[in-house]
Amino acid sequence: MSFPGSGGEPESLKQKNFPGGGELPEDLTRRRFLRDGERLDDLQRSGLRIIQNPRWFCFGMDAVLLSGFVSVKPGEKVMDLCTGSGIIPLLLSAKTKASELSGIEIQLEIADMAARSIAMNGLGDRVHVICGDLRKPGASGPAGSMDVVTCNPPYMEAGRGIVNPDDVQALSRHEITCTLSDTVREAARLLRNGGRCAFVYRPQRLADLLELLRKNRLEPKRLKMVHPFVDRDANMVLIEAVKGGGVFLKIEKPVIVFSEPGIYTPEIREVYGY
Amino acid sequence: MSFPGSGGEPESLKQKNFPGGGELPEDLTRRRFLRDGERLDDLQRSGLRIIQNPRWFCFGMDAVLLSGFVSVKPGEKVMDLCTGSGIIPLLLSAKTKASELSGIEIQLEIADMAARSIAMNGLGDRVHVICGDLRKPGASGPAGSMDVVTCNPPYMEAGRGIVNPDDVQALSRHEITCTLSDTVREAARLLRNGGRCAFVYRPQRLADLLELLRKNRLEPKRLKMVHPFVDRDANMVLIEAVKGGGVFLKIEKPVIVFSEPGIYTPEIREVYGY
Repeated sequence: MSFPGSGGEPESLKQKNFPGGGELPEDLTRRRFLRDGERLDDLQRSGLRIIQNPRWFCFGMDAVLLSGFVSVKPGEKVMDLCTGSGIIPLLLSAKTKASELSGIEIQLEIADMAARSIAMNGLGDRVHVICGDLRKPGASGPAGSMDVVTCNPPYMEAGRGIVNPDDVQALSRHEITCTLSDTVREAARLLRNGGRCAFVYRPQRLADLLELLRKNRLEPKRLKMVHPFVDRDANMVLIEAVKGGGVFLKIEKPVIVFSEPGIYTPEIREVYGY
Repeated sequence: MSFPGSGGEPESLKQKNFPGGGELPEDLTRRRFLRDGERLDDLQRSGLRIIQNPRWFCFGMDAVLLSGFVSVKPGEKVMDLCTGSGIIPLLLSAKTKASELSGIEIQLEIADMAARSIAMNGLGDRVHVICGDLRKPGASGPAGSMDVVTCNPPYMEAGRGIVNPDDVQALSRHEITCTLSDTVREAARLLRNGGRCAFVYRPQRLADLLELLRKNRLEPKRLKMVHPFVDRDANMVLIEAVKGGGVFLKIEKPVIVFSEPGIYTPEIREVYGY
């Protein structure tokens, strides 16, 4: 993890082995990487595990679906904005052949947790976390330096609903430290021309998201709705846009989450790796 | 049908009866209402029939789906822009309790055909066709005079694909006599505050449509994708917007057209009235 002004290289904690050889036993891993109140979850993908703190925020299906939706080609550089526990870069490290995966997260405790997840999985040379404020120019990297940007932005407008500003969870869901507009602007700045950004968002504000993308020369190219059941309203949307692209939007087959109550569809089982 | 400047009342051809009583026999109906090359199609709805000319353009599933999608309350006034054969006002006359349904069509031969369909169905007191150019201020009615506006606009940009400007069919599909932008602007002008407009359109330019709606203070409220099969890209979108409405978009359950090749889903059979 690099902190603003620290100039620090990403912490390299790749050595998974005991000095005497062999894997770290479970209790040693937990003692080494977990803090109080944290838990370890299996990502069902290339043996990956993630550290989460259920007091704050645990990743949801939105992050998993975004990692299955975004197109990343071998050798590409990817930045995840508002990365939280680092779930998206972690999943993309297994699902794609990206050469470099970074995430930026403003909250120190959470960025630290993400860095420990990366280290624990031995991914320190390919996945990095930056603790910083994406609204500050250059905090997440130079302009035009990324091939792909992903983002699961806060979806509640500031001032809507009950918000405790000290609450880590509130910061993740509400537009307190950054707005949808901030994330779209930063995605546009980071991307090379022809680069792609992918967002997962709520249907309620899809028109806002599309408008902001176009204002920032990010042309929507792929849209996918997520419906809990085939006969229910969508509760998420997935969108990919191309910097400087021409007008042609493809609306892909919908994601249907459940075939019947409690039973995931084959598509969801596939994206989760079950 | 009223022509610009004619000041004419809608032609009233309600009398369906012979002077001696009884329904007009089929061959007399055809002789009275049909011109060369035209055919009569059953709308499977309240005994309605429509005159079409297959040389030009026959209505498609898009019009039928739009008539099933738009919300029209009892007593409301509805205007259909680019009405063509009048399919949308005709279907809405059976599906809703609108007090008045009008359509505007620029091509004289087609507006005339629509007027004959209306007369043949005995709907002259409730359904009207205006032959006029919706780009001319006031051609389709005074500002703020409508509760609902529907439109199945031409979806090909002028200059794209092969276009014969003398071709009636080309005028219906390409933005020659009016653009998407013209129809959205006219919908906004015609609607009272709080009134609704509903469009059926192609996914490729959905971002254009959403942008134009917002530019004209028409806030998108309901969006519904139409997929030929559950595992295929959408080939149509249905959208309803409210003049002066607040931001909150609902993405409804998708319309799936076929359950297997050649077999309509129950939803499609319902909307067609089979």
